[in-house]
Amino acid sequence: METHFQKELQELRENLLKMAALVEGAISDAVQSLVKRDSDLAQKTFEAEDKINSMELAIDDSCLKLLALRQPMGANLRFITSAMKIVTDLERMGDQAVNIAERAISLNQEPQLKPYLDIPRMAEITQSMVKDVLDAFVDQDSKLARSVCERDDLVDGLNDQVFRELLTFMMSDPQAITRAVHLLIVCRCLERIADHATNLAEDVIFMLDARVIKHHADVKEEGEGRNIS
Amino acid sequence: METHFQKELQELRENLLKMAALVEGAISDAVQSLVKRDSDLAQKTFEAEDKINSMELAIDDSCLKLLALRQPMGANLRFITSAMKIVTDLERMGDQAVNIAERAISLNQEPQLKPYLDIPRMAEITQSMVKDVLDAFVDQDSKLARSVCERDDLVDGLNDQVFRELLTFMMSDPQAITRAVHLLIVCRCLERIADHATNLAEDVIFMLDARVIKHHADVKEEGEGRNIS
Repeated sequence: METHFQKELQELRENLLKMAALVEGAISDAVQSLVKRDSDLAQKTFEAEDKINSMELAIDDSCLKLLALRQPMGANLRFITSAMKIVTDLERMGDQAVNIAERAISLNQEPQLKPYLDIPRMAEITQSMVKDVLDAFVDQDSKLARSVCERDDLVDGLNDQVFRELLTFMMSDPQAITRAVHLLIVCRCLERIADHATNLAEDVIFMLDARVIKHHADVKEEGEGRNIS
Repeated sequence: METHFQKELQELRENLLKMAALVEGAISDAVQSLVKRDSDLAQKTFEAEDKINSMELAIDDSCLKLLALRQPMGANLRFITSAMKIVTDLERMGDQAVNIAERAISLNQEPQLKPYLDIPRMAEITQSMVKDVLDAFVDQDSKLARSVCERDDLVDGLNDQVFRELLTFMMSDPQAITRAVHLLIVCRCLERIADHATNLAEDVIFMLDARVIKHHADVKEEGEGRNIS
């Protein structure tokens, strides 16, 4: 029975990685749809979302079955309950990818406001965070999880940069406002995905180290003030 | 032992309601800080967030203990795993309230762009959604959970309305752009909180009815198209 349980846990790991790969692909297609001005790619994001939603329900269900039938303890218990939280986050990331794809479709119908340089860079980092946080969870690698948390600052930095740039566009040309607002929202969606990945990374670190780095308790202890942007 | 377990479940219910009340208060203080132009109220949101974060960790921990020690089955198992997902959502709602409070502080330093009418209305509905979805979960009331899902459309409608209004402000006066963008973000934060509440309501309905209304499968079956905004 132990062997069978191990096999079930392995299946769970593989399904989580598959679901994360779908989310990565959905983000990539949504952003590429914008960058390449190809609304067909946005359609691929909508299709991926359906698969992501189905996987959420299936994995959630398999976790409940494992809890009920195997009554796991300790690390296995924590692994399965974490998996249930992770699929919720992955599904929300999929929703954000859909938001980006929807904005891309709107933006592709109008002249391009500016060359998209920082947004694909943000997307690239964000995708790497999604991939790595799931690898960190499955491989129990707290170092990799920490590197995901660190990358969140890069995304926030790029977001602030694009935000200021877009404000300048809006102020100099009222015709640009609608498109700039769409782009602001695309950036916020990417930032939200990065936040989800960071939350997951914090959970992974917590699970592995049983240490609460959540809510940046350590940063607060150093007396750093609240960042008001 | 059964009686003791029932008592533990009752404690869990009470703690979830307490945490939800804190989140409600954090949203209220953040929005009132904006409406009353009183940045001290924003401070109350930051303080509430610390308590919300601590409660998340404490409730999560108590759920893990219940799973390990009581090895619950069926409805109790689903209740405890749902509670673990709920505290994650409540914590994220707290984060959104903090975002609102931060924007309020920025906005309170500049002349008021417009009378705030729709934003407090959005906040009121959103708070009612947070309260009712937790009541629905604790009282196992799927009708109340459904009413939470319905209110999400009201919030989305108000958000679209404010969005259009703010775009008009920005187009007619470049001086208004920065403040309008802050307000756009406040609206999106409220919309995100309402989304979290709706996700939870869908989970509650799923838990109670074991029916998947998630991802609006029923709406899709009716052939309704994707809403692109």
